[in-house]
Order: sequence, then structure tokens, then C-alpha cells
Amino acid sequence: MIRRLGLVGLGLLGGSVAKAARAHGLADEIVAVGRDRARLEPALRDGAIDRAATDLAGGLRDVDFCVLATPVATLTALLPDVWRAVPSDAIVTDVGSTKAAIVETAERLATGRPLAFVGSHPMAGSEQAGYRVSRADLFRGATVIITPTERSDWHAVKRVGAFWEALGGRLMTLDPVTHDRATAAISHLPHLVADALVDAVVRMDPRFFEVAGRGFKDTTRIAASDPQMWREIFQENRAGLAEALAAFRAALDGLERLIAHGDAAAIEAELDRIRRVREGAA
Amino acid sequence: MIRRLGLVGLGLLGGSVAKAARAHGLADEIVAVGRDRARLEPALRDGAIDRAATDLAGGLRDVDFCVLATPVATLTALLPDVWRAVPSDAIVTDVGSTKAAIVETAERLATGRPLAFVGSHPMAGSEQAGYRVSRADLFRGATVIITPTERSDWHAVKRVGAFWEALGGRLMTLDPVTHDRATAAISHLPHLVADALVDAVVRMDPRFFEVAGRGFKDTTRIAASDPQMWREIFQENRAGLAEALAAFRAALDGLERLIAHGDAAAIEAELDRIRRVREGAA
Repeated sequence: MIRRLGLVGLGLLGGSVAKAARAHGLADEIVAVGRDRARLEPALRDGAIDRAATDLAGGLRDVDFCVLATPVATLTALLPDVWRAVPSDAIVTDVGSTKAAIVETAERLATGRPLAFVGSHPMAGSEQAGYRVSRADLFRGATVIITPTERSDWHAVKRVGAFWEALGGRLMTLDPVTHDRATAAISHLPHLVADALVDAVVRMDPRFFEVAGRGFKDTTRIAASDPQMWREIFQENRAGLAEALAAFRAALDGLERLIAHGDAAAIEAELDRIRRVREGAA
Repeated sequence: MIRRLGLVGLGLLGGSVAKAARAHGLADEIVAVGRDRARLEPALRDGAIDRAATDLAGGLRDVDFCVLATPVATLTALLPDVWRAVPSDAIVTDVGSTKAAIVETAERLATGRPLAFVGSHPMAGSEQAGYRVSRADLFRGATVIITPTERSDWHAVKRVGAFWEALGGRLMTLDPVTHDRATAAISHLPHLVADALVDAVVRMDPRFFEVAGRGFKDTTRIAASDPQMWREIFQENRAGLAEALAAFRAALDGLERLIAHGDAAAIEAELDRIRRVREGAA
């Protein structure tokens, strides 16, 4: 399917793309580009990639399919260089958790040099980061959102979708702005809220942690994630997060008011409505 | 250790106390009191209890150790009748999730008729309720908080503590008000927040649930619990919950301000501080 697959960034996601593409025999050759050659060595040794490069121009020469897998904040900044480096018939996608900014940047660049870019967001990950935790089955059963727009090349959209499906992903399609609103609601907001829940205990009395059980651990598990990655996501998706925070505050205020007014039947009806919504969801 | 163990309420917790006490041979005889005799039959049939009664006076006659395991809102209302029913040398405890109100009621009753009451809160449970999900090992490894005060009979405090330890619990001691503040911070607030997170998605766009992954499910799992039980807990612990909500809102506002100001290093330092606090906790 792919002659030469180019990967920029070889952490958890980039490494897993390499291993999964290799395992499924999707590419004749896999080339990884990273700033630090030493960090690409393990992937050369275990055979996940065939070649390692530290410069984009050299690494991406002759690739026909390119996956950008650097941290979110680096992605947009890197895009102009990627744009210059890849052949004009190459298809480019990424794995970033926010989509509006990168798709906008790509479409602006495409007015200068036409090139097929389709945003992707494989919803697979872990609290841990780095190539050493990457694995060939990371995308199996994972939802992968692709974010084409009306300007997208539909041949490229089909190929990017087929790529993720070949890696085991379940495909969803959303426009970039809806993607960012949805992930704000179901991922970025819950993450920020988990951070605030932990900090609320510190503010009340840190000794209260000694009382914490499984429920607290579950609710705040995502607060254990990489600070740099999440700082970048929060900043990149500031607009979506602001909308989700407003909806959340309205929901919390509504529940607090209901509890304060003390109508047992109304409170239980509301808690039951929310329980049923959650059970019906996802 | 116990001649006749009396249980009021035979749901998940009461049923598990019966099964665990039986399994560990802690009581010569186990008597359960419930309003509906038919609902006590399964426990008679499977041998978890020896006798079933529908009236407190008859059921609690001659018990030397009594565990109250009805829903939180019923507990306080039931206490005067329990007080009249048990022998004067009996030890009484409960399994309620909030402690200040019941301990206060017990101490007021004790000024009329001296009786040894010690509040307990075994932090074991499940999203499911009822005798059918009760089990002998529910308390194994679970934190059990007991809430004696300066007025408590220390012989009774020791016996109640020893009872939970015999059932496999890890004992903690807190005064009732601190207990309610701590459980507000690490249990009741996270529960309310999980409800608000689900409702925030509904308010933004219910279709966003289709994007939800494992993280959202984990964060909101507690929102799947019994509406009646949680309505009672929220109302009983209104004071603790209000304090925890204030601390949470301050924490969330602080994080939002920090992200809006956009100093990368400061945001990452804050997220890292919270991550380390959580890792060090519980």
C-alpha cells in the first residue's frame, strides 16, 4: 500500500504507528525523523524502522505517506518545513489531539504549494510516554477521528482512513472545529477537572488523601499524565476548553442549587437522568 | 466474640457484614431486621443470618452488638427506636457514609439513656446495590473509618475497631466533622463533579459522547451509582460538600487563569505539582 512511510517523531504514538505498520506489512520501507539520533536507535535495532534521519529534508525525500507524531505545540510550527520536504504527490497526516489550528495551517500552506493533508486524531494513549511504551496493537479497537474539510482531496481522505483502519482503528469523521469542541468536552475538560479535584484536596487538607479510595483514584487517573503534553493541549484548544468549562460550570451550579433546595424527588430524578445518559453513551 | 449480632438493613453492606461475620465465626447468632420479610428470606435460605424480624423491638432483643446498615437518610430517623430496642449493655455502630449528623443524634439520645454508640464508615461499595451483590470479602483491605468523640466509651471504641479488623478492614480514626469534610473532598465532590461532567456534554452536544474513550468512562464511573443513596449523601453532608465545592472552584479558576495567561513553564510546573501530589497520595 505504501512504498515509503515517513514518520516525524517517534514517541508512544509515532513508535506505535511504525510497529503497527510493520506488523501489518503496510509499507515497504519505514523512515523516522527525529532531532536526536540516539533516541531513534532502539527502533532501528528492533526493526520497527529501516532508516533514521535527523533532518526533515533528507528523511522525508521520496516518502509517499507521512505521519507527523511530534507533540501538539511542535506540529504547527513544524508544518512549513514538512511542506517543503515531502514530494508533491505525498499524503500527509498527523496524530495531534487538537485539530483546528493544524488543519488551518495546512490549508494556508496548500494555497502556496498544493499538497494533500488530512488531520487525524487516534484516541489511544496512556499516562506514559516515549518509544519504550509504544506497541503494535495500540490502535486496535481505538477510535481514530479524521478531520477532512471541504477543501480536502478525497483520494487522500480515503487513503488516510484506510491506513488507520488497517492499523485496527475504528474510524470517525468530524470537521476540525467540532473535533476540538468534542474532545474539549470528553477529554480536555475532564482532565482539567481531575487536576482541580486533586488541588481541592490540597487546599482543604492534604491529609484527606489518606481517606481516598478506588473512586478517587479512578476519577483523577488522567491527572497523572505528562504536564508538557497537556499544557500544549490546553493552550492549543483554548476555545473549545472555554466553551466546555462554561457548560460544566452551568451544570455544576445547577446541581448545587438543586441539592440546596432539597426537593428529594427532583434531585433523584436529575441524578437518574444523568446516570441514564451516561449508560447510554459510548 | 459476639453472642447475638443484630443487623438493621440487609442490602449490600448489611448483607456483607452478615456474610463476613459468619465466614469469620464472629457471632454465635445473627439476627436481621428489615421492613419487608420477603427481602430477608434469601439470607435465611443461604445461612447468612439465623433469624429475620420485621420489628426493631423483637429483632434487637438480647443483641450485644448491633450494626445499622439502612440508607443514610433513614439512619438518623431510626436511631430513637433502635435506642429503645437494644439492651443497655449493647454496642451500636452503623455503616453510614456521613457521620456528623448520626453521631450528634446518638450523643443526644445517650443523655437520656446511656448506650455505647460508635460511628463507622466502611469505604467499600459498588455501583450496584442490594443483598444479591453482598459478599463475605467486601471489607477485606477496605478502609474503615470509625468516628469516636471525647464522649465515647473506649471499651466500645476498641470492640467496634476490632470488629471491622476481624472482617478484614484497615482501621482509621477521625472525628465526625473531619470525616465528613474528608469524604466530601475525596468522594462526594468527585461524585458531583462526575455528574456535572456528563451533563456538560449533554449541554454542549450529546453526540459528543460518541467520541468518549476510556478516560471519560473512568472519570465518570461514579456517576453510575444509585440516585437515592447519593441524593441522601449530598443532602446529609451539605456542609462538607459546600466547603469542598468552594475549594474546587478556587482550584479550577486558578488553573483556568494560568492557562489563559499562557506562561508555558508556569502551567507545566503547576500540572507537575498536582501530578506529584496525586502520585504521593493514597
